[in-house]
Amino acid sequence: MDNSIKTSKKFPIPKTMKAWVLGNPNEIKLSQKDVLLPSKSEVLIRIDAVAICATDLDVISHGPPAMIKGGSPFNKNFTPGHEYMGTIVALGPSVDEFEIGDRVTVEIHAGCGQCKRCRMGMYTSCHNYGLNYGNKDKGHRANGFTSDGGFKQYAINHVNTLIKVPDDMTDEEATLVVTAGTTMYGLTELGGLVSGESVVVIGPGPIGLLGVAIAKSLGASPVILVGTRNNRLEIGKKLGADFVLNVNEENNIINSVKSLVGEIGVDYVIECAGTEQALNEAILMCNRGAKICLAAFPHKKIKVNIPHLVINNIYMYGIRGEGKSATHRAMAFMKEKRFDAKLIHTHTFKLNDLPKALKYARERIDGSIKIVIKPWE
Amino acid sequence: MDNSIKTSKKFPIPKTMKAWVLGNPNEIKLSQKDVLLPSKSEVLIRIDAVAICATDLDVISHGPPAMIKGGSPFNKNFTPGHEYMGTIVALGPSVDEFEIGDRVTVEIHAGCGQCKRCRMGMYTSCHNYGLNYGNKDKGHRANGFTSDGGFKQYAINHVNTLIKVPDDMTDEEATLVVTAGTTMYGLTELGGLVSGESVVVIGPGPIGLLGVAIAKSLGASPVILVGTRNNRLEIGKKLGADFVLNVNEENNIINSVKSLVGEIGVDYVIECAGTEQALNEAILMCNRGAKICLAAFPHKKIKVNIPHLVINNIYMYGIRGEGKSATHRAMAFMKEKRFDAKLIHTHTFKLNDLPKALKYARERIDGSIKIVIKPWE
Amino acid sequence: MDNSIKTSKKFPIPKTMKAWVLGNPNEIKLSQKDVLLPSKSEVLIRIDAVAICATDLDVISHGPPAMIKGGSPFNKNFTPGHEYMGTIVALGPSVDEFEIGDRVTVEIHAGCGQCKRCRMGMYTSCHNYGLNYGNKDKGHRANGFTSDGGFKQYAINHVNTLIKVPDDMTDEEATLVVTAGTTMYGLTELGGLVSGESVVVIGPGPIGLLGVAIAKSLGASPVILVGTRNNRLEIGKKLGADFVLNVNEENNIINSVKSLVGEIGVDYVIECAGTEQALNEAILMCNRGAKICLAAFPHKKIKVNIPHLVINNIYMYGIRGEGKSATHRAMAFMKEKRFDAKLIHTHTFKLNDLPKALKYARERIDGSIKIVIKPWE
Amino acid sequence: MDNSIKTSKKFPIPKTMKAWVLGNPNEIKLSQKDVLLPSKSEVLIRIDAVAICATDLDVISHGPPAMIKGGSPFNKNFTPGHEYMGTIVALGPSVDEFEIGDRVTVEIHAGCGQCKRCRMGMYTSCHNYGLNYGNKDKGHRANGFTSDGGFKQYAINHVNTLIKVPDDMTDEEATLVVTAGTTMYGLTELGGLVSGESVVVIGPGPIGLLGVAIAKSLGASPVILVGTRNNRLEIGKKLGADFVLNVNEENNIINSVKSLVGEIGVDYVIECAGTEQALNEAILMCNRGAKICLAAFPHKKIKVNIPHLVINNIYMYGIRGEGKSATHRAMAFMKEKRFDAKLIHTHTFKLNDLPKALKYARERIDGSIKIVIKPWE
Repeated sequence: MDNSIKTSKKFPIPKTMKAWVLGNPNEIKLSQKDVLLPSKSEVLIRIDAVAICATDLDVISHGPPAMIKGGSPFNKNFTPGHEYMGTIVALGPSVDEFEIGDRVTVEIHAGCGQCKRCRMGMYTSCHNYGLNYGNKDKGHRANGFTSDGGFKQYAINHVNTLIKVPDDMTDEEATLVVTAGTTMYGLTELGGLVSGESVVVIGPGPIGLLGVAIAKSLGASPVILVGTRNNRLEIGKKLGADFVLNVNEENNIINSVKSLVGEIGVDYVIECAGTEQALNEAILMCNRGAKICLAAFPHKKIKVNIPHLVINNIYMYGIRGEGKSATHRAMAFMKEKRFDAKLIHTHTFKLNDLPKALKYARERIDGSIKIVIKPWE
Repeated sequence: MDNSIKTSKKFPIPKTMKAWVLGNPNEIKLSQKDVLLPSKSEVLIRIDAVAICATDLDVISHGPPAMIKGGSPFNKNFTPGHEYMGTIVALGPSVDEFEIGDRVTVEIHAGCGQCKRCRMGMYTSCHNYGLNYGNKDKGHRANGFTSDGGFKQYAINHVNTLIKVPDDMTDEEATLVVTAGTTMYGLTELGGLVSGESVVVIGPGPIGLLGVAIAKSLGASPVILVGTRNNRLEIGKKLGADFVLNVNEENNIINSVKSLVGEIGVDYVIECAGTEQALNEAILMCNRGAKICLAAFPHKKIKVNIPHLVINNIYMYGIRGEGKSATHRAMAFMKEKRFDAKLIHTHTFKLNDLPKALKYARERIDGSIKIVIKPWE
Repeated sequence: MDNSIKTSKKFPIPKTMKAWVLGNPNEIKLSQKDVLLPSKSEVLIRIDAVAICATDLDVISHGPPAMIKGGSPFNKNFTPGHEYMGTIVALGPSVDEFEIGDRVTVEIHAGCGQCKRCRMGMYTSCHNYGLNYGNKDKGHRANGFTSDGGFKQYAINHVNTLIKVPDDMTDEEATLVVTAGTTMYGLTELGGLVSGESVVVIGPGPIGLLGVAIAKSLGASPVILVGTRNNRLEIGKKLGADFVLNVNEENNIINSVKSLVGEIGVDYVIECAGTEQALNEAILMCNRGAKICLAAFPHKKIKVNIPHLVINNIYMYGIRGEGKSATHRAMAFMKEKRFDAKLIHTHTFKLNDLPKALKYARERIDGSIKIVIKPWE
Repeated sequence: MDNSIKTSKKFPIPKTMKAWVLGNPNEIKLSQKDVLLPSKSEVLIRIDAVAICATDLDVISHGPPAMIKGGSPFNKNFTPGHEYMGTIVALGPSVDEFEIGDRVTVEIHAGCGQCKRCRMGMYTSCHNYGLNYGNKDKGHRANGFTSDGGFKQYAINHVNTLIKVPDDMTDEEATLVVTAGTTMYGLTELGGLVSGESVVVIGPGPIGLLGVAIAKSLGASPVILVGTRNNRLEIGKKLGADFVLNVNEENNIINSVKSLVGEIGVDYVIECAGTEQALNEAILMCNRGAKICLAAFPHKKIKVNIPHLVINNIYMYGIRGEGKSATHRAMAFMKEKRFDAKLIHTHTFKLNDLPKALKYARERIDGSIKIVIKPWE
């Protein structure tokens, strides 16, 4: 076996890089880290853009979930950030699917490849999730969660996590592919065949808005977006929503949905709000045999209308991440310009300004939806 | 088209029959009804045995759900009862799948055959559910729920609801096929391939006990039954449970399950208890990517651990009835004597004694599990 | 039950209509037929447009297949034609899904709704196929094949066969929905998730050309069309083919495909040529685990490379018609103008000119692809 | 990461071992090979039993297929044999799913884990099949085909290929699990839900006989075995066939099958004969919408009734190996003693007698079906 790593003079690799690390809760510090080299089936990526996800804010406040189990997750030199893209600058041994210079965007999860879930393509539900600390490395990686993330200048990724970026797609748009991949995974698990089916998306955050776009691309009709802020609902229309409903302006959101899809109710709901009210409304607007994708969740137990769910044979799917190669399917539509994901990109910051960018994201300053960091500007 | 109805001298059909009808809430009255003749694609069945289901008790207390929508469901000459079997005594026009004299057991639901769910085989989620009152008959029937049921001597059934009973199966056992069909439908919808997978069944009522038997027949391993009554858990063992756990005797049922299936958790849970505690325990004993079949439900909203469900990519299926021809698959195993469903049959009563039988069922007198009525004894 | 039929003064229904009937082989005669009224779950359609399919030519030469079994299919007053659309002018009892005046296009098959295939949504594989002659009417209809077809002015259709036509879609385009539905059904059966997957379509007839459009709409990439006539390949490009290959201009079509999709081979092939050469080329251009949709077929046994198929774990699907509600999914894309199906519509004739139209279709006169008859012009 | 390999004094590992190697075509030579140590995610197995498969005879005559592409496959020190089981004697780094001393049987294929097929669980269709020669090791292994096989005393296997053997299962029976896994994989790919469905198995070789057993275990009914040798048909009955048909004793095998399952035809055929006649009979005995599993294949192109296949919407699956963890599902039934796989084990030989054993297998001497080699006796 050839164990050599391939690099190129065109992309010289520095010894160290800028990297933000998690200090105490809600504290991030700009630091220096060594640039490591890729192992078998891995590549080294120069990060050209990284988007901020609401989950990053959670990780910075509470620590990465898997690390919490192993004691305090703070002050461990951990770099958050998981929605990144960049340019391949080194190939580990055996990699020939990609070349140096390829632009790629990443899926978060590299599964262990050995557990029953990975063997089904459900690598975001890897049974060795987080088991990459200490001396039992099962190969699972969720960069930004269980392994070092993307608020830095270089990252190592397994080839399984890479999606090629076409030349005419900007760095900023490429960071959004994994967001679109989440609802694509959800709709895959719900059955995948939504053309001509009615779909309600609740919650016009980034996942909900691109959920509208993905559902529409797959042929869903009508696609109805439910939210509270009219500016976001307007973006939803541009991304493919046939109808938008502002819950604050409707007497009864369930009746409003039924007036659009028929008294029998809707076929699919993609629930991206994560509240007790939203989930129960989702259940009540469903028709018999309908399916609900839970792409968001509350932080504690909530009261759920289980009787209505069972009596009406409704299925509910807790969707975590973007498995079953769904991100590749999302890219297939974005490559064809079926929708303009850039509509949800509102702000760009330099790497040094990450704290300010996080503040914009947390407080939704200036109507921010998706904020992108450019580590090399 | 030949519109003639076939009958046989061997099975003379009387003009009238004994039939129990629902009076006021919790009141049933023995009455007489006309024996009707079958239309196209229907047969007339002489009911030889009918089992009592917990849902029958609900119907007798609250009225059949679909009728409730149309005003008071009481004193409408409605006959409850849905788990029946018998002998075909008349064939409606076009029926040649069956012959007079055939012993058959029935599925509850005949779908309309026209809505999107029926066209997918999900006829228990028919979008014309209950639409057989008044002048818009869409063809849906759920005998004992939306149309006349089986606590009487004859019934008319659509051929789609019939399953042939082998000669060596008793009438009493044949009434249990639809109960077994419910978990078969559930496991079908959860993916169907459970051989070698771990399955926990919570709640050793009739559906849970036959759920153990069906899971084991399909090759699930281990099958773990969780309940509170040791006599029922013992029956569960005979029906195929590899392990039984009495929640009252375990410190922590989740840990007890994990000690049997591994720390990662179980692959499938069939939840037949319908309580807040049971559902949340089901969620916590699941592994990442696991699936929960909800075959029972509480009567009001309950607090549910949605965060754990979503973070662990767990899917939850509200299962209503026995669609996708699952009852035929259940019968395939029962015909082969893979398990002895008769173990859950505890009592037999005559038709005239239905009130007493219902009391036994409601109060679980004398350890009753499944009670069967024999209309001709 | 209300058995009344609804009609409207706006659409008066004549007693008789013009209808072409099959005489001797290859002979059709213009005749008069009674206009019948719809039964339960049926509607009467005024046929506004009917397209000619290659299968119609077969039926006119050899007789409708199901009738052949019952003796000579000729001179039986049978009207061929199955790709029609029109306006609903009468509603049978119980129909409320549609209104008089609705424009609809039709699926060919109404299944019996009782056999195991119909209960799975596979109504084009109905086990009572053709059993609507004589006194055993099981309800199956395939208008133009087993029951009276559409080369006439009115037709009766079961509601299950109807798809609403949007106002801005022309009659001519609406006749093409069922053609698009065939490949949609094929891709549904092959798994349905083709976004980002490579697809080769062999044979740019109407099914192949709309197969390109459907595959592209579902996100397939690249879509490669293989044929022999450059004018049709050019239409394929407009319908979404990323690449077109003229087999007469390529040294080795398998190598040409591999140069576009990679040495490993293609993910899906939709085979619409129906020749021995095309099928074996399809097999050889597949990658391991690929799938082939057979949407055409030769008239006799052919030599097939079964060893290559098995060794490479290739699956091959004989696709007949347009089951599993696929036509609705095709319409969902056509309604959204994802592709311009009208590109394959080349000629229009009056009903009286049907013989000439058939000649154009058979001899491909004047570059004809899809020829439409307008019964009321 | 801990890179240490675990061994145990209880299972001392010699430096070298006996190993048969392929010389010229049809020539095998007893040789010595080094005993290698396992890498990450691998174990070292002491081979306790290895069965002879018909494919081994092909490999010994023609060379392993993947090697053929790289030049002559002969005299390369290659050891054939792939149906082995044994005892784990060393654990590679990171392995904690197994312990030293565990008895395991093996799947043949370890996929690369990176290609699109592996990511779907279809690792027997790995797109990096055979790419483990030279300096581009993608991780794919098919021991006995693309990497060193089991006609020796020790083997290295990836953990993904291992299935634990219960204590009460003999070594000989454990070698048969992978054979049962082949039809389990086939039935998985055909849909998996065969309870109550009719299944014909053609060809009572080892795969066909265990195919009968697997189909019956899954609840298929009736299961019909078709063959030419009555002694094997008798074994088929013991393994679960409801009916056996000797093609030499039937006038028309298609009619004979239909007399058992009904005129409409059979739901599933598992074709294990690999002849032109058998495949075409399989097609003709199918009902509309039926499915055929091709578990055997001829060595050249054959004439196939494609028209009948397409017109009747029949699907045909080329099945190679035992993917989607099907072997685990097969073991689940064997562990429960649902059938006695040992019935097909007819002869046992010592490792030194491999040439004689191969002769028995090739010439079917003494009614041999499955021959097992015991490397340590």
